[in-house]
Amino acid sequence: MSDTRTERFQLEAARLGYDFSGQLQIGGNYVSTIRHGAVLHISGQVPRVGSEVVVVGEAGSSVTLERAQHAAEVCAMRALVLIAQSEGSLDAVRQVLSVRVYTRSAPGFTQQSEVANAASDLLVRVLGPAGTHTRTSVGVAQLPKGAAVEIDMTVALA
Amino acid sequence: MSDTRTERFQLEAARLGYDFSGQLQIGGNYVSTIRHGAVLHISGQVPRVGSEVVVVGEAGSSVTLERAQHAAEVCAMRALVLIAQSEGSLDAVRQVLSVRVYTRSAPGFTQQSEVANAASDLLVRVLGPAGTHTRTSVGVAQLPKGAAVEIDMTVALA
Amino acid sequence: MSDTRTERFQLEAARLGYDFSGQLQIGGNYVSTIRHGAVLHISGQVPRVGSEVVVVGEAGSSVTLERAQHAAEVCAMRALVLIAQSEGSLDAVRQVLSVRVYTRSAPGFTQQSEVANAASDLLVRVLGPAGTHTRTSVGVAQLPKGAAVEIDMTVALA
Repeated sequence: MSDTRTERFQLEAARLGYDFSGQLQIGGNYVSTIRHGAVLHISGQVPRVGSEVVVVGEAGSSVTLERAQHAAEVCAMRALVLIAQSEGSLDAVRQVLSVRVYTRSAPGFTQQSEVANAASDLLVRVLGPAGTHTRTSVGVAQLPKGAAVEIDMTVALA
Repeated sequence: MSDTRTERFQLEAARLGYDFSGQLQIGGNYVSTIRHGAVLHISGQVPRVGSEVVVVGEAGSSVTLERAQHAAEVCAMRALVLIAQSEGSLDAVRQVLSVRVYTRSAPGFTQQSEVANAASDLLVRVLGPAGTHTRTSVGVAQLPKGAAVEIDMTVALA
Repeated sequence: MSDTRTERFQLEAARLGYDFSGQLQIGGNYVSTIRHGAVLHISGQVPRVGSEVVVVGEAGSSVTLERAQHAAEVCAMRALVLIAQSEGSLDAVRQVLSVRVYTRSAPGFTQQSEVANAASDLLVRVLGPAGTHTRTSVGVAQLPKGAAVEIDMTVALA
């Protein structure tokens, strides 16, 4: 395991093959993060890189489990970028508190937990024990821009 | 922009054409708001005015984007009514923290963000900068009473 | 009403016909509960008893309202088990803050509130006034393991 959270974040970015530098684009009259007391609220993230949603479609039909997991990882990476932008560094994370994973799901698809695991595992790889969290995984009918996965979270700050 | 949040709320009510005075009806063994510390939790609101859900159906099929946006505005107004009932006035809002917008969505409908924007814009029009928030928008299969939109939120109090 | 929350929990377990003793199984790289300050976050619970999800399917088609309500009760009982495991006893609950009830819903099923009421009523029966809460009920396309209902919640601790 690399020494710092930032280094481990960069390893994940390289593995996924995306550049997460630069400001993230959001799609409406709201903000990406709000800090209240020691809790940071993070808006729902779809797997957008630059201006493109990289995994569009429905898990279990046009999107395989592996691609949905990839989408979940990109959503989690975006949340990490937003934390670092808001707080200066990923070192500000004391504990991820709650993660909600919404997977756009075909009628017969019941592997929402397996999709969510990809995000959970990435958070723990990057943040260590501070990345463990409570989680809710549901299968939804649709998501903004046709995204396959959307993830929001709350984080306790150091 | 009118001088007070209450006046701006009344302007929105007039524009929407509904009377939001009087106690709001809720549908089960729970409460509309709970305050814990400086955070107010607000139950999921469907676009009910009096005893009628005013926008029923599925965005993208029986419900147009415009009507779904209207529904989102009514949900947001109900949340504002509940805040004022709980805290005495909308002036108690220090910052809206998180807003979740659930849009009942036909298979091909991907404008959940555009629906949610109507609620986000209304919150900012009434509350000013205190109305900005983090947000999650998802498309769901169904909602209570067949409502087209449901919104819940948490709010930091002054 | 029985004297203690623990006794009332046991009455509900007997009525439902399940044994909720023993550690609950969870399905991924996350934890069941996290305490931050005076708030306990509880992961989404499906109606699993031992290794079996006891109500699988879609409310309004393969699952009746009554069975979906049974599922909601089992989810709520699991949350109570997790609270007691985390905090030593149900007496630690000062107030349930928020409950989200996700019901897997057939196209024409709009009784998500009625499903959720079964969980709300159980929480109040076991915890008394501390069991009242804010609530969001939505109808989703799918849930992990094909479960009919999933419930998550946050709780204020004494």
